Amino acid sequence: MSDLLQRVTELAQAAKKAARVVALASTETRNRALQAAAQALRVDEAAILSANGKDLAAAQAKGLTAAMTDRLRLDHQRLEDIAVACEAVAKLPDPVGEVTEEWTRPNGIRITRRRVPIGLVAIIFESRPNVTVDAAALCLKSGNGCILRGGSEALHTNLALAQSFATGLRNAGLPAEAVTLLPFTDREAVPALGSLRGIVDIIIPRGGPGLIEAVVNSAKVPVIKHDAGICHVYVHAQADLKMAEAIILNAKCQRPSACNALETLLVDAAVAPKFLPLIAQALAARQTELRACEKTRAILPTAPAATEQDFRTEHLGLILNIKIVGGLDEAVRHIEAYGSHHSDAIVTEDAATARAFLAQIDSACVYWNASTRFTDGAEFGFGAEVGISTDRLHARGPMGLRELTTWKFEIVGQGQVRA
Amino acid sequence: MSDLLQRVTELAQAAKKAARVVALASTETRNRALQAAAQALRVDEAAILSANGKDLAAAQAKGLTAAMTDRLRLDHQRLEDIAVACEAVAKLPDPVGEVTEEWTRPNGIRITRRRVPIGLVAIIFESRPNVTVDAAALCLKSGNGCILRGGSEALHTNLALAQSFATGLRNAGLPAEAVTLLPFTDREAVPALGSLRGIVDIIIPRGGPGLIEAVVNSAKVPVIKHDAGICHVYVHAQADLKMAEAIILNAKCQRPSACNALETLLVDAAVAPKFLPLIAQALAARQTELRACEKTRAILPTAPAATEQDFRTEHLGLILNIKIVGGLDEAVRHIEAYGSHHSDAIVTEDAATARAFLAQIDSACVYWNASTRFTDGAEFGFGAEVGISTDRLHARGPMGLRELTTWKFEIVGQGQVRA
Repeated sequence: MSDLLQRVTELAQAAKKAARVVALASTETRNRALQAAAQALRVDEAAILSANGKDLAAAQAKGLTAAMTDRLRLDHQRLEDIAVACEAVAKLPDPVGEVTEEWTRPNGIRITRRRVPIGLVAIIFESRPNVTVDAAALCLKSGNGCILRGGSEALHTNLALAQSFATGLRNAGLPAEAVTLLPFTDREAVPALGSLRGIVDIIIPRGGPGLIEAVVNSAKVPVIKHDAGICHVYVHAQADLKMAEAIILNAKCQRPSACNALETLLVDAAVAPKFLPLIAQALAARQTELRACEKTRAILPTAPAATEQDFRTEHLGLILNIKIVGGLDEAVRHIEAYGSHHSDAIVTEDAATARAFLAQIDSACVYWNASTRFTDGAEFGFGAEVGISTDRLHARGPMGLRELTTWKFEIVGQGQVRA
Repeated sequence: MSDLLQRVTELAQAAKKAARVVALASTETRNRALQAAAQALRVDEAAILSANGKDLAAAQAKGLTAAMTDRLRLDHQRLEDIAVACEAVAKLPDPVGEVTEEWTRPNGIRITRRRVPIGLVAIIFESRPNVTVDAAALCLKSGNGCILRGGSEALHTNLALAQSFATGLRNAGLPAEAVTLLPFTDREAVPALGSLRGIVDIIIPRGGPGLIEAVVNSAKVPVIKHDAGICHVYVHAQADLKMAEAIILNAKCQRPSACNALETLLVDAAVAPKFLPLIAQALAARQTELRACEKTRAILPTAPAATEQDFRTEHLGLILNIKIVGGLDEAVRHIEAYGSHHSDAIVTEDAATARAFLAQIDSACVYWNASTRFTDGAEFGFGAEVGISTDRLHARGPMGLRELTTWKFEIVGQGQVRA
């Protein structure tokens, strides 16, 4: 066993042991820990901002972009937001112990299906330091232990945040190891975590395609991916064109870096001559570049041509593919062939076409006359989200606290045996 | 790409395409196909039994045990049972399309969570030929395509059964490729199936530890394991001893080869002197061998000693480990350390102890005063079962038709965009 694997194994074993304590702790104890963690984050502000300063200095030395450096930066207000988010999680209903079904069999045995924590959850992420506390809070709330591996550029900040969280756990009488941040960010830590069958119960990778591939290709434990969104809006022949415009501008331009943002606009040939010039103008006003199919370019001659690859690309910026389709069937075929089964929308006033679209599109979220940007735990009313699962099993679409639980069957009898 | 991988890929791609047709087919069409498949199995009896004869001859030539040969054997009655099981699946309620939740957000968007098929399900099994039709029927009922890889000793039989099933699909106007049996049983087909991300949506291995390991270690697509059961019964100090005896005899002796059969009996020290001689006599009368801890041997001096390994072994036969424990805590510690989180029972008249046991044992099924043998889809009232999942995600414990589905969120608005 390599030295690194050994260290990861030891940390994970300690986290697993602590996870069992958290799983059996009362709702009150877990909530008290969350409140105490929020308090510790405030008390430790100086230490956290100082650690963040080290990461920022290193980032500047390495020449990270201004956008990346800004994502890394904490200040008084951002830290306060993190603490408040932690308190908000404490206030959410506890999924643990919830009875989802209960029935009695003819032989008299009573079967109760009850939510229980998954166990030890590994989360691998690359993004902003607030994810560290968010992930820890959601896992603790749902009775899980967690082992976190953040990005190397945020290591000092993450370690400081994790230390405050540990204070919260200890103040509530819970073992600090229940939230374990790996104190190193070697690439090899990813396959190491994924190899720990019987210790790590699930790995959740949140990040770019490289990270996702690394996890999926090496993991021997179950994975729930948070992968790319190649989302579509189909403007049907019977669309309300003003509504279509509003939905497209929102889906594309409001936050183009989000996985639920629009990448490809499909326009029905019947409305293309009327609609395309309107939407092109509105998009131009929002600095959005187009990538247009040949038929679209017959109407919008100045639009650059789309390549085959464009239709398979998550642009993550103000670029929109446009394609004219002959009708519902072609729209569905395109989305199924090029999409990522994340979030896809139809705009139409025709209920029968809308119903057919909702049934035929095999995506986590299918929309009729609404923006794809609603694919989000908070927008769904889940209170908090672990992320958006692009997998089909256990969690699909917005992943909330409930998806951080599994269940057990409790069977109560009076001596029944099987015939 | 190896030749074998290429062939598996082509078969899986055709099955995936057919899976989409099945996913969009009506309940009536899928049920009609199931009924037509049952009819075809009866019409094709001569061909199926002749194919089975080839497999039986090969098995005898290879020197397979009488028990294994018997599991392989089909006759008129067994084939009729398979056809009837197929018709029974047709009569079950359709899980596809079921709305499991529905709510409206303050902004007016309505969110519906609806069950949909998973897609293409790969099932790898080693056991009796009836599994071929069972698995195909359950996948078809739940709107999935399937790709099946059975054991080499049953290949001719399985091919004949699959051909009859294909007749059923075609008679209902569905593509025969929706149920694809791999026409070869090379070991390399297992990692090949597991590598097909984007084509195969889930792999379910049903079989011995070697098969499970091969799948888990190679698969890049999600796996739901049907692994070993190391199940326990704990006889508490306040147990009704007559009830305990009945439960133990049922759990150990009724079908010792089942994964929900008892492997280790834990007896509270307070009742051991009284209970152990009674249960030892009853087990001896059922030809059950004991593997006893040292304390047990002080009471049952003729019982052979248990090794550490015995307590980690799924004996799959009439062998029972016995250990005396000091109380609930030691019982829980033993089960958590040595068990497989499958099915574990307590026998007691004390409700507080029972509740503590149900909460602290982290197994798919936890029992109070009932036999572990009830861990079964039919006994739970699921109508049919794919098997018993020993995984924690998506399916845990008896896996029925519902666990062969995932869901989508349908969001209906009136032009809402995100603020």
